[in-house]
Amino acid sequence: MKPGIPKGTRDFTPTQVYRRQYILQIIQSIFEKYGYQPIETPAMEKLETLTGKYGDEGDQLIFKVLNNGDYLRKADPEALSEKDSQKLIPSIARRGLRYDLTVPFARFVTMHQHELQFPFKRYQMQPVWRADRPQKGRYQEFYQCDADAIGTDSLICEAEYIRIIDQVFDQLGIKVSIFLNNRKVLAGIAELLGAPDRLAELTVTIDKLDKIGREAVDIDLLNKGFDNDQISKLHDFLDLEELSELSRALATSIIGSTGVSELSEVLSYLEGMELNNHLRIKTSLARGLNYYTGCIFEVTAHAHEMGSLLGGGRYDDLTGVFGLKGVSGVGISFGVERIYDICEAANLFPDVLDKRIKALFLGLDKESHRAAFALAERCRIAGIACDVYPDPAKLRKQMKFANQIGVRYTIVLGSEELQSRRYTCKDMDSGDQELLDLDQLIQKLAR
Amino acid sequence: MKPGIPKGTRDFTPTQVYRRQYILQIIQSIFEKYGYQPIETPAMEKLETLTGKYGDEGDQLIFKVLNNGDYLRKADPEALSEKDSQKLIPSIARRGLRYDLTVPFARFVTMHQHELQFPFKRYQMQPVWRADRPQKGRYQEFYQCDADAIGTDSLICEAEYIRIIDQVFDQLGIKVSIFLNNRKVLAGIAELLGAPDRLAELTVTIDKLDKIGREAVDIDLLNKGFDNDQISKLHDFLDLEELSELSRALATSIIGSTGVSELSEVLSYLEGMELNNHLRIKTSLARGLNYYTGCIFEVTAHAHEMGSLLGGGRYDDLTGVFGLKGVSGVGISFGVERIYDICEAANLFPDVLDKRIKALFLGLDKESHRAAFALAERCRIAGIACDVYPDPAKLRKQMKFANQIGVRYTIVLGSEELQSRRYTCKDMDSGDQELLDLDQLIQKLAR
Repeated sequence: MKPGIPKGTRDFTPTQVYRRQYILQIIQSIFEKYGYQPIETPAMEKLETLTGKYGDEGDQLIFKVLNNGDYLRKADPEALSEKDSQKLIPSIARRGLRYDLTVPFARFVTMHQHELQFPFKRYQMQPVWRADRPQKGRYQEFYQCDADAIGTDSLICEAEYIRIIDQVFDQLGIKVSIFLNNRKVLAGIAELLGAPDRLAELTVTIDKLDKIGREAVDIDLLNKGFDNDQISKLHDFLDLEELSELSRALATSIIGSTGVSELSEVLSYLEGMELNNHLRIKTSLARGLNYYTGCIFEVTAHAHEMGSLLGGGRYDDLTGVFGLKGVSGVGISFGVERIYDICEAANLFPDVLDKRIKALFLGLDKESHRAAFALAERCRIAGIACDVYPDPAKLRKQMKFANQIGVRYTIVLGSEELQSRRYTCKDMDSGDQELLDLDQLIQKLAR
Repeated sequence: MKPGIPKGTRDFTPTQVYRRQYILQIIQSIFEKYGYQPIETPAMEKLETLTGKYGDEGDQLIFKVLNNGDYLRKADPEALSEKDSQKLIPSIARRGLRYDLTVPFARFVTMHQHELQFPFKRYQMQPVWRADRPQKGRYQEFYQCDADAIGTDSLICEAEYIRIIDQVFDQLGIKVSIFLNNRKVLAGIAELLGAPDRLAELTVTIDKLDKIGREAVDIDLLNKGFDNDQISKLHDFLDLEELSELSRALATSIIGSTGVSELSEVLSYLEGMELNNHLRIKTSLARGLNYYTGCIFEVTAHAHEMGSLLGGGRYDDLTGVFGLKGVSGVGISFGVERIYDICEAANLFPDVLDKRIKALFLGLDKESHRAAFALAERCRIAGIACDVYPDPAKLRKQMKFANQIGVRYTIVLGSEELQSRRYTCKDMDSGDQELLDLDQLIQKLAR
């Protein structure tokens, strides 16, 4: 049998794992500086926790886990005889694989509400699974990397996220634009267009502006029954980038004005602080997800056509569906898979990531090989990652291996070195050699 | 709806995540010092990769993932009409959840053999899933933590593992015994008992010696058709702990003598090195798994009735089933869930793990609150993890929160502090207060 893995899943080689860890650790260390704490939830959730949260299409894309044992014994006989795949599911699959980190987080907060202190700031970096058709850059198993602050209305959280986003991308070396808007601004616009009850439709269409362009949006809006006057007015609003202009334009809408003043409060926290990336108010930023109710965020990279690298926003009621009402929160989610692709394309990973093993010891005969192990042990105790070629093979073979694994230094041991207790340390990059005693060797390798 | 999680799965709170990370990071850093590199494999494997590798019972315990879409359309009609759950599986589930890390590793090595340099030393720390009946200490989702060296026969690997094991448990503060044996020694014993073809049966029974005791083992052996003479001879062998005695006793068995000389070669690498834990040859150590062919390892804790904390051994042919023949390897697997339970019971986790947030800034009014954010930002840029209470609430309320989250320092900001630019930093443990300017504050918190 020729082995393979399921379509849309991936193996990660050491280099890839180091690179993924590099990205996650930058994000993690910045989350922790801002008081975010990690939680983890199980890969499998009860199917009832997941279904109905992602729309009909989402429900289809949840991986269901078959009950164990004689699962057909309790299978819905009607669904079986009708061969109705969807109807049969609840009776043969109790569990599903996590589809995102947001729903499990809401479930977690509701279950653990009495152990947690609110506001509760958590981050979570775990894989999720979706039965999407695999294609370039889209996988059936991929990481999400979320931070949420729940149990407070304070806009200090929004300000914090802008700082976090700015620092993460700065440390990664990716120049980005951070876009900020507020759902209440969009609601105000809908109100002033005379269509306050059509906010959801409007946002879905506005959200596509960057992708499909103005003309296509206008056609879409006309088809939806908006008139030319409304559409032209809409674009006037969407063109506004200055908060003062937006404030004037929305002055007669209470909800619109609230949105503007929330945005202005977020910015007030940031006064006098320098950002490394552009922060822009973008009135046409809508974010598809309907649970957002306040500020919304999006990040795109300057030099890379890659879509959004981060999304997020404030929601008024994430946990209500699980029975915990009235808890407001705000969160962001880094698109770590896309960030990885950019770092790889733009060569942003530090070289040192691949060179974890600093030195390889090569023994020329049985006794030297054993001495090489003892020497390596002394280096390891001193904290140096190193290795010993596993046999006293021909030097040529051992050196070939050293080159293949890309080790920085090699130390060859023969009977001479055993006697003199001085070892030749070869720099594999430059070819330079140095004769060192044990202490000097440790000093050199520890550098 | 009252939310819950599937039986046998767990949520991890921040404290638990920090503690789990603490254990994994100790193991990881020692693996890396010995030249082991991380790989990751997908949670879902093709079902054909997993089935047939863990015995019939194992096959039952693999979680199968239901095909998406109209999965009944391609369902085996015979199995459906017979309501044969097991027979139906292959036609409705193409994927299963990873049952351990060994089979995915063998699959990985076979698939990537042309990209890898052999010997290839990899470690892997990922969850696995088993549909075992949940009970205390046994979960349906749990971490495994494995290292394997594949593509070499050298016994330097075995010596390395003893050093790794010794250092991991020393760093964790758990006193253990490291038991070492060799399958060839057991084969030699079987040969000298006149039952060379019954090694598998013998090892299964010997393996239970610690659990069920000598009497029960003897009854078991009698039932299996061994006679009293064989049984008494067997125990004579199993009582031997000195390699020299074992060598004499097995002198007439070629395979037994090979086992002894392998053990002695492993020990020769360790000559002159101090171990922090006891290393013992244990002739009755058998390890249930039948793919082991050489040295085998086991670790138990002194002060804790917990069963084995680590198992491992050498195998001659792990990848053969996937088509890559003749590749020898050796590996160990840390039982991180049990190690966690011991660390918790014996209070071995450092206190500092829980105190990730060093300081909480409390603003007394709107202006001070905003200044608190600016001050916190200065500290964060200096690398200090800190937080700001999200609103200028009553001081009493803010202080209560500081106590609840267990923060080490609080800094209260009012109009006075804003003017003087000197801040009172309160040590929440001792109650001591100090008046500091920004630089002094950063110095204090960075300590």
